[in-house]
Amino acid sequence: MLRLGIDVGGTFIKAGVVDENYTILEKVSIPTGADQGFISVVNTIARTARLAAKKVGRPLEDFACIGFGIPGLINPKSGVVVLAPNLEGWKDVPFLTEIQKLLPVSVYAGNDANCAVVGETLAGAAKGCKDVVMLTLGTGVGGGVVCDGKLFTGGQGLGAELGHMVLSMDGNTCGCGMQGCIEAYCSVTAFVKQTKAAMAAYPKSLMHAYAKEAGEVDGRTAFECSKAGDLAAQTVVNTYCRYLANAIGSLVTIYRPETVLIGGGLSNQREYLMDKLNALLPKYTFASGSIGVPPVCRATLGNDAGTIGAAYLDIM
Amino acid sequence: MLRLGIDVGGTFIKAGVVDENYTILEKVSIPTGADQGFISVVNTIARTARLAAKKVGRPLEDFACIGFGIPGLINPKSGVVVLAPNLEGWKDVPFLTEIQKLLPVSVYAGNDANCAVVGETLAGAAKGCKDVVMLTLGTGVGGGVVCDGKLFTGGQGLGAELGHMVLSMDGNTCGCGMQGCIEAYCSVTAFVKQTKAAMAAYPKSLMHAYAKEAGEVDGRTAFECSKAGDLAAQTVVNTYCRYLANAIGSLVTIYRPETVLIGGGLSNQREYLMDKLNALLPKYTFASGSIGVPPVCRATLGNDAGTIGAAYLDIM
Repeated sequence: MLRLGIDVGGTFIKAGVVDENYTILEKVSIPTGADQGFISVVNTIARTARLAAKKVGRPLEDFACIGFGIPGLINPKSGVVVLAPNLEGWKDVPFLTEIQKLLPVSVYAGNDANCAVVGETLAGAAKGCKDVVMLTLGTGVGGGVVCDGKLFTGGQGLGAELGHMVLSMDGNTCGCGMQGCIEAYCSVTAFVKQTKAAMAAYPKSLMHAYAKEAGEVDGRTAFECSKAGDLAAQTVVNTYCRYLANAIGSLVTIYRPETVLIGGGLSNQREYLMDKLNALLPKYTFASGSIGVPPVCRATLGNDAGTIGAAYLDIM
Repeated sequence: MLRLGIDVGGTFIKAGVVDENYTILEKVSIPTGADQGFISVVNTIARTARLAAKKVGRPLEDFACIGFGIPGLINPKSGVVVLAPNLEGWKDVPFLTEIQKLLPVSVYAGNDANCAVVGETLAGAAKGCKDVVMLTLGTGVGGGVVCDGKLFTGGQGLGAELGHMVLSMDGNTCGCGMQGCIEAYCSVTAFVKQTKAAMAAYPKSLMHAYAKEAGEVDGRTAFECSKAGDLAAQTVVNTYCRYLANAIGSLVTIYRPETVLIGGGLSNQREYLMDKLNALLPKYTFASGSIGVPPVCRATLGNDAGTIGAAYLDIM
């Protein structure tokens, strides 16, 4: 049977029709209108679902279920969204109850980073694995964990906020208001800050010319100049990799996954990034001499991971 | 039916006969002879089990099962002990296979800190809770987690080594060889080091007289002098509480337990310690303003937690 996976983003609501082989048959995207408030967005989500069904010429009743990836804290059992910073007014709202009123099949919801790890585990880089940790490096750091073949979300389904584990006590201030979170060191936002600080310290670094040509300093600046042999850029990249490997080592110490996946923009650095992380990981993982460490790999499905994962939340 | 819970320690093997109400009816303790090697210790363990059964006048066949708490890394499914630093030669040894040959009922094994959280959840401070995190503060920091009523041990059962999560990147060296582990800041060993450093810096601190009378600097020194109003001691205690609260906050962010239990010697500081931790926790927990934080409580069963938990490993 077909399923619908819907990514509820701050800008767009993206629906995908997913088949039994985890293939996305059709996609639909509608502006969220996040400023219109909760009930209005819920209506738009239902409309997106109907549109996606129409695109494959089937009534919604023919779908096995519809799953939603939510950019925030959601209790998957009650379906209450505790907080979704990019969606105005989504604070302690009964999302699943409200959306169920508008849709004729079973609905499920999960945090968007959790949907991504489900997608990658079912159909992507972690296919066949029962224990997986995934970090999505973007504006923030999203985290998802699969344990023994099931999505791990902790008590009330509100846990596994891996990006807000402490990495450096009393360290850099995080967007969440706490200090020293993994996100404050390993997000693309943090990496760009680290890049800019090095550029300020090294006026002759290649990074200046590179950023000028690109029009801005972004996640590529230091990586590309590092590959080109720029010493300041290499220091930025190596320091960042040390931060990230330390965070991953902590996660491996707790979860002992078969594989660690890296998603988000920086994962496009592929082997250049993964090789460094894999080389550093044993140093930052408990008992790595006795137990070894899992491989750190690039997530392969991109944004589709979240769509596929949302569609299959019911089995995880 | 009766059960046997056996704590395999580096110095003593302690067996307890546990009934359906989680009451320990009889206890037996035999020197481990840890230097005699794996097979010899396995034989001693079996002997301890038979002795405990004899003490209640029942054959081992009458017991529902026997569970073992192991001070090291153990895969609970395979029963292989990967490493147990205090037991000579226990490196990749098939513990459950060998002990099963000597005993007539089903056997189960788990890490000792995991047994403790099982005991406290079934019969102690977390009775009735489905999601629990417990830290045992001793020479090291032991960790145990119950998620949705089940013991959480991660992939291969080798995870949840909470004491070796990172707290301070590039920070103090831990006994495990890594840097910045929770254990390197929050163990009693670390706390005594922090106390001694403050004593060296403040020769007039009350801690000198207190330690002289007690015969040594231990986990009580700073706490008792802090209660007596000594400023240097108060700084030691408050700094330690900040470390520990930060570690607990990270664990709450991941596991979202209903309660966090503190066991080990320092938990004897009761409200004096717990009040400080509870006051600090919101600062170090993600989204505490929206979700709140669980209470930090003292574990109540002491060493019995491990015995009861080992006896009931099969249902967790």
